[in-house]
Amino acid sequence: MTTTAPVSTDPTRTLRPTGTGQHTESDGVRVDVPALTDVVLGRYADLRRSARELFTEDRFWKIEGQTVPEHRTRVLDQLRTLAREGNVHRAFPERFGGADDHGGSLARFEELVTADPSLQIKAGVQWGLYASAILHLGTTEHHDRLLPDALSVDVPGAFAMTETGHGSDVASVATTATYDPATEEFVLHTPFRAAWKDYLGNAGQHGTAAVVFAQLITDGVNHGVHAFYVPIRDAATGEFLPGIGGEDDGLKGGLNGIDNGRLWFDHVRIPRTDLLNRYGDVAPDGSYTSPIASPGRRFFTMLGTLVQGRVSLDGAAVNAARIGLDIAVTYGNQRRQFPGARPTEEVVLLDYGQHRRRLLPLLAETYAAGFAHEHLLSAFDDVFSGRADTEAGREELETLAAALKPTSTWHALDTLQACREACGGAGFLTQNRLTSLRADLDVYVTFEGDNTVLYQLVGKRLLTNYARTIGGDPAVIARMMAEKVTDAALHRMPLARAVQTLVDAGDARRSAGQLRETETQRALLADRAHTMVAELAQALRPARRSAPDVAAALFDAHQHEMIETARAHAELLQWEAFTRGLDQITDSGTRQIVTWLRDLFGLTLIERHMAWYLLNGRLSAGRARTVTSYIERLLLRLRPHAQDLVDAFGLAPEHVRAEIASGAEGQRQEEAREWQRAQRASGEAPVPEKKPGR
Amino acid sequence: MTTTAPVSTDPTRTLRPTGTGQHTESDGVRVDVPALTDVVLGRYADLRRSARELFTEDRFWKIEGQTVPEHRTRVLDQLRTLAREGNVHRAFPERFGGADDHGGSLARFEELVTADPSLQIKAGVQWGLYASAILHLGTTEHHDRLLPDALSVDVPGAFAMTETGHGSDVASVATTATYDPATEEFVLHTPFRAAWKDYLGNAGQHGTAAVVFAQLITDGVNHGVHAFYVPIRDAATGEFLPGIGGEDDGLKGGLNGIDNGRLWFDHVRIPRTDLLNRYGDVAPDGSYTSPIASPGRRFFTMLGTLVQGRVSLDGAAVNAARIGLDIAVTYGNQRRQFPGARPTEEVVLLDYGQHRRRLLPLLAETYAAGFAHEHLLSAFDDVFSGRADTEAGREELETLAAALKPTSTWHALDTLQACREACGGAGFLTQNRLTSLRADLDVYVTFEGDNTVLYQLVGKRLLTNYARTIGGDPAVIARMMAEKVTDAALHRMPLARAVQTLVDAGDARRSAGQLRETETQRALLADRAHTMVAELAQALRPARRSAPDVAAALFDAHQHEMIETARAHAELLQWEAFTRGLDQITDSGTRQIVTWLRDLFGLTLIERHMAWYLLNGRLSAGRARTVTSYIERLLLRLRPHAQDLVDAFGLAPEHVRAEIASGAEGQRQEEAREWQRAQRASGEAPVPEKKPGR
Repeated sequence: MTTTAPVSTDPTRTLRPTGTGQHTESDGVRVDVPALTDVVLGRYADLRRSARELFTEDRFWKIEGQTVPEHRTRVLDQLRTLAREGNVHRAFPERFGGADDHGGSLARFEELVTADPSLQIKAGVQWGLYASAILHLGTTEHHDRLLPDALSVDVPGAFAMTETGHGSDVASVATTATYDPATEEFVLHTPFRAAWKDYLGNAGQHGTAAVVFAQLITDGVNHGVHAFYVPIRDAATGEFLPGIGGEDDGLKGGLNGIDNGRLWFDHVRIPRTDLLNRYGDVAPDGSYTSPIASPGRRFFTMLGTLVQGRVSLDGAAVNAARIGLDIAVTYGNQRRQFPGARPTEEVVLLDYGQHRRRLLPLLAETYAAGFAHEHLLSAFDDVFSGRADTEAGREELETLAAALKPTSTWHALDTLQACREACGGAGFLTQNRLTSLRADLDVYVTFEGDNTVLYQLVGKRLLTNYARTIGGDPAVIARMMAEKVTDAALHRMPLARAVQTLVDAGDARRSAGQLRETETQRALLADRAHTMVAELAQALRPARRSAPDVAAALFDAHQHEMIETARAHAELLQWEAFTRGLDQITDSGTRQIVTWLRDLFGLTLIERHMAWYLLNGRLSAGRARTVTSYIERLLLRLRPHAQDLVDAFGLAPEHVRAEIASGAEGQRQEEAREWQRAQRASGEAPVPEKKPGR
Repeated sequence: MTTTAPVSTDPTRTLRPTGTGQHTESDGVRVDVPALTDVVLGRYADLRRSARELFTEDRFWKIEGQTVPEHRTRVLDQLRTLAREGNVHRAFPERFGGADDHGGSLARFEELVTADPSLQIKAGVQWGLYASAILHLGTTEHHDRLLPDALSVDVPGAFAMTETGHGSDVASVATTATYDPATEEFVLHTPFRAAWKDYLGNAGQHGTAAVVFAQLITDGVNHGVHAFYVPIRDAATGEFLPGIGGEDDGLKGGLNGIDNGRLWFDHVRIPRTDLLNRYGDVAPDGSYTSPIASPGRRFFTMLGTLVQGRVSLDGAAVNAARIGLDIAVTYGNQRRQFPGARPTEEVVLLDYGQHRRRLLPLLAETYAAGFAHEHLLSAFDDVFSGRADTEAGREELETLAAALKPTSTWHALDTLQACREACGGAGFLTQNRLTSLRADLDVYVTFEGDNTVLYQLVGKRLLTNYARTIGGDPAVIARMMAEKVTDAALHRMPLARAVQTLVDAGDARRSAGQLRETETQRALLADRAHTMVAELAQALRPARRSAPDVAAALFDAHQHEMIETARAHAELLQWEAFTRGLDQITDSGTRQIVTWLRDLFGLTLIERHMAWYLLNGRLSAGRARTVTSYIERLLLRLRPHAQDLVDAFGLAPEHVRAEIASGAEGQRQEEAREWQRAQRASGEAPVPEKKPGR
């Protein structure tokens, strides 16, 4: 029989010419793939490469279809392997085997998503949250006593912050830690069901200790949320210690290698010295002291360590989007469907206009998110290394993380879904990775700060900064008012725009030329981001002099705009980072192609928000039409380089692990076409029922 | 200790006052929930109710976390139970125990998604595809011989149409069935790997027969794709029959209760009489005859039966979206997060502007999709019952299904995702249903016709209809050209619009009033849908006189617009169906509220496409701003009725099966608030560190 055996589904094989320099030339330019990979991998390229090298080993990979107990056990074992071999303690002090390298540590951590997102998040719980809380909120005695076992995973630990009744609103957690001077102990207590700690990694099964966040009460005063070290399970038996109980969170939409669970405390007594007391301490007599006088500032300082989770999720989301695009673009370059202009030749998917429209803007946005992440990671390292650890620096970092984490995690989900659909039924098979990765990434948009809540935080910061600017300089107010008036005049008197429309209509080519210019894109994006803040500030101004309920209603009425304002800010940040990133590309052909990609990103944003630009008189109808037609031109220009642009992510087949991206599809298509060519050549092919002229 | 035991997670309990008439009154109106449920359940309300009643029994439910073998076995058993007890043969002739009731049968089938989407799709494979192909493509002898075992599931059957290398392009399948007059047999053969049948339900494990689609070749002529009955496995041993092989598709992103798999044929001989010969037959001597002369029309006639799959997926997607919204709105009405205007009172999620913005437009669209589906189901029944089985009727039905199935299945995914995010971490837990349902529904957007391919089909039909209209009536051409000129004039001379802008600015209230009017919404939506077709036709006009490759490039350049044109058409269909649906509501208060919901749907569409309306001079900037502010007003008006509007879906807790929609969250919140009230009353509550005036 002529049916061939199934092609190898060994996920490690590839037919792609990666790293060979055999890249597609079009429009007289081509991508220097290895050089672009260096740029993509950024400041920590070497650390990322060594992490990726480690994760080419299948002992770190997710095994699809494992039962929950098998998967959990595997991930715990992998975690301990990483503790021994994985260079995962870089963020910790040298005396604990680390390197005080915060940025580098996160860079490596972000690459873990290629192995198994469950392993990434379990590592994040153990080292990024649990051990990190001991490091940042505890003092030397805690470090010496608790860090070694936390780092080695001899003590798997939970980070017990979230409660069933309080997710993003940490200030309102209801668990109490009441100091008893008689015994010099804190009494931890869960007053009602909604105050159970919930969704905690390591709490469902493996954790033997936890850092518990609770309202610290001493001498009748609540000093706000503090962190306490609490042993929770007998390591030998796995049973909860007396007074402690909980539940397994059970099956989840993804990340089932992690044992999320719930915890409650029934008057559990812990020594006074198990308060992690860097930012607040209780003396034996019950008196409270803190180096930070303001309870509000103290709370935000203690929560400051959380930012590293957001930073790393931003980076992991970018990596997940890269994997998705690697799969869909590779498949889209091999897969043929429906006859084209020549009836004997089926069309490659990426040669369909809609397929390009679906995937290439996502590719552009993934590059943008990658460059923005490198910027965020540098800012993070500047603060955490101490080089720029000022209050302003921390605030800036938090705002940056709160802006980028939602943007990139939502982008990752959109991208993985678009890639899965672009691969049709094959995309739905687990062997092609996309559905599994999307399921695991799903929760990234609501944990470590719900995306909507984070955008709102950004919106508030933007308003505060705006108020500061205005407050500081009367000249600025005057200028802003003048601009405001100009806006209003434009809005009420569209005759001026009318003229512009007429002019534009006469010169579409010049208009496209302008859109290609960096300064035009910047002006359009920045103008929108800044105007939205100013308008929001204007709309909320009456709240200052209103009763709380009136003010709350006003804020509520503008919550949607506040969130859209934050999104506009985040998109501008991404575009600016992408634009700065272009400077790092030395090869002129590569820079040309990646500049087209940046243009595609910028123009896609402008097209997405076109109604705003038209409504606010920033673009005439004529120029607006040019945006879409220029996007179409860019898609055609970029199409020949699409494979090189995903190859430049530098992912090995061992990171991608999708049968359809292994070259198998290309082989199947080639075999089919070869058979058809042979049939035609043989002269024995059956003729169609109605052949022309027959 | 005061920690309560965990509340019951028994999914069948509810605290919602369904069916009690105790509904929220606001703005002087309230929803008559039971009466609205009657309208929602539509023409087949009784059949739907009896199906839902059956599916309150847990023997039909998905058990989350089962292994793939367990889940597959359970679903096969459930399928056989349904065959005995489920009234699942209604679409078949009375002599086979059916009722010749095509619409009613699909209505019941659509409710199966509440039990387990795997069970729904396995039922669809067995009765909707496999048995249905025997019924519609076979003749009396096939019916008598094959239908009883197909209906009883004594023979689980695969519908072997799709090939690895050919998904939506059925005409190009490469499997051949070559007639051998010497033995009066067809020889089925798979020439290469890409021609393996793939993604077939029942092929992975359970199927003992298949309806195989292959190119019928006799006497050296290929008569195109025909269907053949082919036994594939020994029922006793489960082994493939000689010459037949295959593979299990393995784990998938969802629907793991179905054994999808691949099949290949190595010169497998089947009797001549196993050609399902209603639309094409081969005599013993090898001569081919068909009642349909045109191979193209014959192909589309044979594929006509596929439309019922698309119709039913449209209905199932609506039901899935309803379940999602039932969960998220119920939770959003109970869950509190972050203090509001009064510091002691946390805010209910649905009282946040952004939460309403997220969920209520999806609720409106779900109603629209529901009404549109009822329209589609009626059209389907008209054709399949024979009452309106004309070529035009079939074509209209196919276009309708091709427009609505993509729209509702994408909507279901968007809705389930938004609902999952709106429920935060709780939404990610499998016990709250949303992630599981979304994973199962994912493939609905690419199977039974890839959504993008279907939209393209709609776009082509719209162009054909447009050409017919123009071709038929010179007066129409003249009028259209005149309108075209008017458009162009408006575009090039925005002075006319400028006047309108000035006028609008003076009277925002009148503008909102106009947007509320049915005729205004219709005019805006219809104008866009029709103009897009006309413009597309205009753009593609040069293709008629071009070489194939030039024409193909032109089509490709406009593929994105063609798909957007189809989407606009589908949205208009939904809006029209929603508007007609309002007439069925007799209670005036209910009609008022549902009219607001229709307005929200209409205005959300207009807002979504605002750039188009502005660019094309259909809305002035002033009126455009009114759209958004009127949406905000509608959201506030609808908010008090949100629970009633989801309750009117008529889903019982046994269909919803989400812990957070069971009333448990309300109970947790009430317990927490009660504890806090008691604390405050006791005078023993700790005071905050910095109490004002302290």
